[in-house]
Amino acid sequence: MDRNPLVRESDLQFLLREVFEVERLCALEPFSHLDLDTFELYISATRTLARERLYPLYREMDQAPPTFDGAHVATHPHMVTCYDQLAELGVIVASRPEEVGGAALPQTIVTIANLYLMAANAGAAGFPLLTAGAAHLVEAFGNDETRALFMRRMYDGEWTGTMALTEPHAGSSLAEITTRATPRPDGRYHVRGSKIFISGGDHDIRPNIVHMTLARIEGAPSGIKGVSLFAIPKLRPEGDDLVPNDVHTTQLIHKIGWKALPSVALNYGEDDDCIGWLIGEPGAGLKYMFQMMNEARLMVGANGVATASVAYFAALEYATTRRQGRSISNPSATSSAPIIDHPDVRRMLLRQKAIVEGGAALLVQTGLYADHAAAGPTQQRPRAAGVLDILTPVAKSFPAEWGFESNSLALQVFGGYGYTTEYMPEAWLRDQRLNSIHEGTTGIQGLDLLGRKVVARQGEALRALLEDLHQDVERATPHAHLSAHATSLARACQRLVVTTGKLASRGAGGDVAGMLNHSDNYLRSASVILVAWMWLKMATAAAQRDPSDFTRGKVAACDYWFREELVRADGWLRNCEDAESSFAALSPDAL
Amino acid sequence: MDRNPLVRESDLQFLLREVFEVERLCALEPFSHLDLDTFELYISATRTLARERLYPLYREMDQAPPTFDGAHVATHPHMVTCYDQLAELGVIVASRPEEVGGAALPQTIVTIANLYLMAANAGAAGFPLLTAGAAHLVEAFGNDETRALFMRRMYDGEWTGTMALTEPHAGSSLAEITTRATPRPDGRYHVRGSKIFISGGDHDIRPNIVHMTLARIEGAPSGIKGVSLFAIPKLRPEGDDLVPNDVHTTQLIHKIGWKALPSVALNYGEDDDCIGWLIGEPGAGLKYMFQMMNEARLMVGANGVATASVAYFAALEYATTRRQGRSISNPSATSSAPIIDHPDVRRMLLRQKAIVEGGAALLVQTGLYADHAAAGPTQQRPRAAGVLDILTPVAKSFPAEWGFESNSLALQVFGGYGYTTEYMPEAWLRDQRLNSIHEGTTGIQGLDLLGRKVVARQGEALRALLEDLHQDVERATPHAHLSAHATSLARACQRLVVTTGKLASRGAGGDVAGMLNHSDNYLRSASVILVAWMWLKMATAAAQRDPSDFTRGKVAACDYWFREELVRADGWLRNCEDAESSFAALSPDAL
Repeated sequence: MDRNPLVRESDLQFLLREVFEVERLCALEPFSHLDLDTFELYISATRTLARERLYPLYREMDQAPPTFDGAHVATHPHMVTCYDQLAELGVIVASRPEEVGGAALPQTIVTIANLYLMAANAGAAGFPLLTAGAAHLVEAFGNDETRALFMRRMYDGEWTGTMALTEPHAGSSLAEITTRATPRPDGRYHVRGSKIFISGGDHDIRPNIVHMTLARIEGAPSGIKGVSLFAIPKLRPEGDDLVPNDVHTTQLIHKIGWKALPSVALNYGEDDDCIGWLIGEPGAGLKYMFQMMNEARLMVGANGVATASVAYFAALEYATTRRQGRSISNPSATSSAPIIDHPDVRRMLLRQKAIVEGGAALLVQTGLYADHAAAGPTQQRPRAAGVLDILTPVAKSFPAEWGFESNSLALQVFGGYGYTTEYMPEAWLRDQRLNSIHEGTTGIQGLDLLGRKVVARQGEALRALLEDLHQDVERATPHAHLSAHATSLARACQRLVVTTGKLASRGAGGDVAGMLNHSDNYLRSASVILVAWMWLKMATAAAQRDPSDFTRGKVAACDYWFREELVRADGWLRNCEDAESSFAALSPDAL
Repeated sequence: MDRNPLVRESDLQFLLREVFEVERLCALEPFSHLDLDTFELYISATRTLARERLYPLYREMDQAPPTFDGAHVATHPHMVTCYDQLAELGVIVASRPEEVGGAALPQTIVTIANLYLMAANAGAAGFPLLTAGAAHLVEAFGNDETRALFMRRMYDGEWTGTMALTEPHAGSSLAEITTRATPRPDGRYHVRGSKIFISGGDHDIRPNIVHMTLARIEGAPSGIKGVSLFAIPKLRPEGDDLVPNDVHTTQLIHKIGWKALPSVALNYGEDDDCIGWLIGEPGAGLKYMFQMMNEARLMVGANGVATASVAYFAALEYATTRRQGRSISNPSATSSAPIIDHPDVRRMLLRQKAIVEGGAALLVQTGLYADHAAAGPTQQRPRAAGVLDILTPVAKSFPAEWGFESNSLALQVFGGYGYTTEYMPEAWLRDQRLNSIHEGTTGIQGLDLLGRKVVARQGEALRALLEDLHQDVERATPHAHLSAHATSLARACQRLVVTTGKLASRGAGGDVAGMLNHSDNYLRSASVILVAWMWLKMATAAAQRDPSDFTRGKVAACDYWFREELVRADGWLRNCEDAESSFAALSPDAL
């Protein structure tokens, strides 16, 4: 196996210590028992597992996906020991408090550590991360019974968990789910229905699986208010035994990537013998699930960054070793040049670097708001939570969308070899393609950002975010080579505010469609602006160091972002503003 | 099998009859025996074969790629009868003159017909189209012996042909090829060397294959001047027999798409018994090959359009039948809406339409210049050839790059289902990904456009192209809803001219790197501008008709292109001009 770093230590160190000074998190009470060394110890252990175990298995897991015999799914034979090791490392409980067996690490640190796992093997990493999310739901909203029954075993690594939302006919539209739950005398529920695209929904690595399932209690109102959350195990406890709970795998879905992680369709209650445990209050299922979904969206963003990162380092390695042609700047050389000497190859690499590192910084920034929202001084939490709300759809969709371009560029650097399964970039391109679909498509992220997040509480959260951003603009301004960028960023933000205001008043005036028709352009604008913020922050931190290749790389990527990406926001925002949305009124027959 | 139209008749009719009035080609002497009916007869026969034979086989050919037993490649069992039918239809000789058995059809018509074949099954269509190119090389540059021996049998459908340029160590850098040819007393050559990525390089559908191979004659100068062209058959004629010619398949390359068409590595002369026939003059191999490569580049462009087209129609069909959620414009509806009613889905479809139809128009436009360059009045040929030279890199790379985005959007419309092999968009996305690599990567197209094509003869060809474009600007201007677009296009062209001048003088002043560092931005700018020209032309033609869904669709796509795409040219051209190319000077260690 090659020695791909997956994610580069020096870049992460720079983010942790210099750009974001994450040690300051230890001033928050829940993290006061921790320090930078603890953070780095966990990251380093995760990195080792990722590099030495998950990454070497990636290729064979991609090539030998799970199989289905009509009743049961079999995963790759090495997946079971991988899961042992992931559980032992503490991946499932890293961010949870000590009383449930966790390490109480900040979300920021867990996200960074997860980057290694995801870059190494996105599918394999999916098992513990989904389990963590499922268990967290029971921790947050379950009662003593369900916590003992389900949460503990998932956190312990004994059972795994899933997120069972989607139904075949409903897709992204959760208001339309029809899975039914009927009360039983013992307070549990009979469940009947079908789910699809359930990641980790069947496997042979652990005996039992807890499906965190959205269903309607009989007689519940239609729409999202009638949706409740249930824990539905594959095997249910009866006395000291585990007996089948009438949950059937009906189909193994043939995904084009994430091959280590099976995705299945499930039937509940074919034999009227499927029992579910209600979690929390009836009708609050979607609200609860959003806790998990928001975590999952940041995980998807991390996946986007990670998958772009591993491919970037593969492309960088290939470009420095593969020799071909003469460089434009040295056309009379007697031997062929490494392809990194061709400007267009270097451009493709710089673009990947700008996306990967810009995306990583955005995730750290988002993680910090998440940590302050959960663990900061009580009175400051709503502000951090508001900013987190705004950042989430961007931190989810930017790495997915730009990451796909980045992965495609990595393949391009390999030329004809990149088009073959003999090299890995095509596999990472397939993996990346999922990230703009699962946990809410990019289209949905755009609606979430513009239709909910920036307009909530008269734009209070957006103002808070921009306050923080402007502090970084002020820090950058004194640096001669950054002041122009600082001005550009401030101007782009000003434009964003104006556009947001115009769209919001269009919506408030009753023309919701007119407001939301350009949500894609709005999301894209917000994305390039927020990543420009990250690059300005990184370039400012780099200016504190003595010049080196490292700092020159940061400045070059920052310059690149402002020159090639930030400039695009203006046109998109103009299109948002001018209310020209005839496309939305176009007859389908005109397409 | 579904009833995907592959390419829509009404759109092609509109291009042929109204936008480009291709019947005017019949005024050219070589086409004077033809009329619009003949054109449409050929297109219609091709369409039928594509829809009824190639498309229904696509999926199984994608899922059961060729196999290799260590000596021979076996293709899909149905490929042999497909090839029979393609040959019988005349696909191999459609554009060739009657004296070699052809139908002497204009390139424009052949390209349009080929769109159907490529949309149906890009890999299967590759066999006859590569054979056509190989045979055309012998026709153009061979002598009586090689024409009788090779050309005739390829045109007749008896043997197939390939294009054997790339070597494992050299990739895109053809100056570095090392395959050796040693003269024999009989005027033929012993050949020894290796080639890689040879599409159709081995198969079992025909007994023999003619590899049009670049090699160096012993003692030839280094670099491209030492490269000659050879026809090297898999089996060579000896008396009345065909005997093995010491050409060995050493590897079947596992491509991620184009599965019907095997790509192999070949060894020539392992046993010192491989004989090649020199084609044309020694040392002129690359010049000859460029004839074939330019044809091949337009084929790649057609493939890009075709592959985006078939996926677009699948996405359009899915979006009109799949119901999910409530539309923003009708939130209180009692049943869920087809997803096409969601503005973001409609936007994704409109973008695909704009790329597919804009790309198809660009290919027709390019085909017309090719026809005038080959068959126009003698004194006008150089002008048409010059414009063709400029259009070729754009007509190759635009459909590949924007087509990839279009195919990715088609997958996105299918949501989670698009991420599975149960639906077809993922296969088309894989197919499309090759088009920015083969026959010269997009990076190479950029260098070709800026470094060679627009600066040749003091920009004469670019001026000619812009003259023609401005005629269409003038035609559009009187139409009220198009005059603003006409002005925008004229302004963008003015900007392109200024930028070209600045870059050219930078190059002429000795700073070739400074000129070429932004070739990617230059190519992208030229692409959106030329496609804007196409959309203006189409919208102008639509304005001649009574309003209908058809014409409203054209206007909407035109508006979309000007609003969302043409506007990008300005930023790219500014970046080209300001000579900021520090990225190219960046140390590889800073990446």
